[in-house]
Amino acid sequence: MKKIKVIKIGGKLIENTELLNRLCDELPRFYPNCVLVHGGGTLAGQLATKLGLEVKMHEGRRITDAETLKVTVMAYAGLANKTVVAELQKRGVNACGVSGCDMGIVVSHKRPVKDIDWGFVGDIESVNCDMVAMLLEKGIMPVFSPITFSKEGELLNTNADSVANGVASALAERYEVELTFCFDKPGVLMDIDDDNSAIPSINREQFAELKESGVIYSGMLPKLENAFKTIDSGVSAVRLTDPDHLDGGTVIVK
Amino acid sequence: MKKIKVIKIGGKLIENTELLNRLCDELPRFYPNCVLVHGGGTLAGQLATKLGLEVKMHEGRRITDAETLKVTVMAYAGLANKTVVAELQKRGVNACGVSGCDMGIVVSHKRPVKDIDWGFVGDIESVNCDMVAMLLEKGIMPVFSPITFSKEGELLNTNADSVANGVASALAERYEVELTFCFDKPGVLMDIDDDNSAIPSINREQFAELKESGVIYSGMLPKLENAFKTIDSGVSAVRLTDPDHLDGGTVIVK
Repeated sequence: MKKIKVIKIGGKLIENTELLNRLCDELPRFYPNCVLVHGGGTLAGQLATKLGLEVKMHEGRRITDAETLKVTVMAYAGLANKTVVAELQKRGVNACGVSGCDMGIVVSHKRPVKDIDWGFVGDIESVNCDMVAMLLEKGIMPVFSPITFSKEGELLNTNADSVANGVASALAERYEVELTFCFDKPGVLMDIDDDNSAIPSINREQFAELKESGVIYSGMLPKLENAFKTIDSGVSAVRLTDPDHLDGGTVIVK
Repeated sequence: MKKIKVIKIGGKLIENTELLNRLCDELPRFYPNCVLVHGGGTLAGQLATKLGLEVKMHEGRRITDAETLKVTVMAYAGLANKTVVAELQKRGVNACGVSGCDMGIVVSHKRPVKDIDWGFVGDIESVNCDMVAMLLEKGIMPVFSPITFSKEGELLNTNADSVANGVASALAERYEVELTFCFDKPGVLMDIDDDNSAIPSINREQFAELKESGVIYSGMLPKLENAFKTIDSGVSAVRLTDPDHLDGGTVIVK
């Protein structure tokens, strides 16, 4: 079974040219068995502020009204996506930027209004594995933006981690898939102040212990809980690392 | 030889939801033997103005500095492109938005500085027919934004008519190609005030006569001169029409 690496790069990498270049320097060695998914970090927020759009938040999360959606599509599907693709093409990687609507790959639906109307935010319904596999088999590296679409033709702002999970899980039907979350830390650290203390691998039992002992806490908890869910969906392993250690970092296993 | 219709839609269609919807309603009948190329109209200019960017013009044409380029990429490769793709997906057309960098389809170079530095403006070097053909053969309708890229990894703002010409000419190596320029007039009119006076077809001899008699003048002249050049590059015919007459309008032939 062919091995495919799905790499999700965080917003901080997209905003930082030096970090982005370092990552792009590393990617040719995984090509053509690699898929990229990126977020947009604060790009859209910055643009919205410059345009004088009112920022509507609920419990620390942004509400995407019609104007904010346009800004998000411009920043993520436009600037962030094409910048990454051009950097990869320069390095000999035949990348193709895709948003969910392109080839109908990621279909979502508008999040239903319960207590709060999140606006144009999409929850993923399905990922078309055939289309992604077609690109991979043609030697093309898909680069996903976190903009998806509904069958009603609405563009929807979607959590980039969810897109990465969805794409990785769909590809797991056909390939041996590893999902890498590439962020600004070299893994799950035993000592938060020591970048050399990344824990090589964590299974469920070890996770329970690390949580109990307080080594894993705060923002790292949902990341790991999410990683175990991803593994349950058929993905072989989830890796947490930074651009300099794409073969290292911390691997989450069953 | 398979027939392919390359349709270039002008900026006015992109800006006008009603016109765009009318066009999208017509496109399913040409699918899957159709390629779309769009401009962005005044979308980028409006955004640049809202962001307070200084508009630099030379002889009526915009100079694309680094910040203006970002705005152009956001507006054309982002918002305009994904809006069209989502509208087509809604109508059952498996469209895929592409900018020049995607799959390395349209390579350009930065326009050399002579009297004037146009900034990040690209002149087309090559169009990869194989990649476009691959999409068409898979039943995917490519939707091109006018953003191209250089081998140095720069994104470049490019004239949408030039992208349409480049794509049509490249496809003419393999298919019988008709290039349609879809704008807000139902063709080349005998009487500018009568929308029912479209001239069905014009060859070089007739063009000379119509120019001589003053029927064709001003903005229509470069459009037609351009059309004759396109035909010389192997494209079978060039059609000038509006969204309601995609099989009618005026056809430019040898």
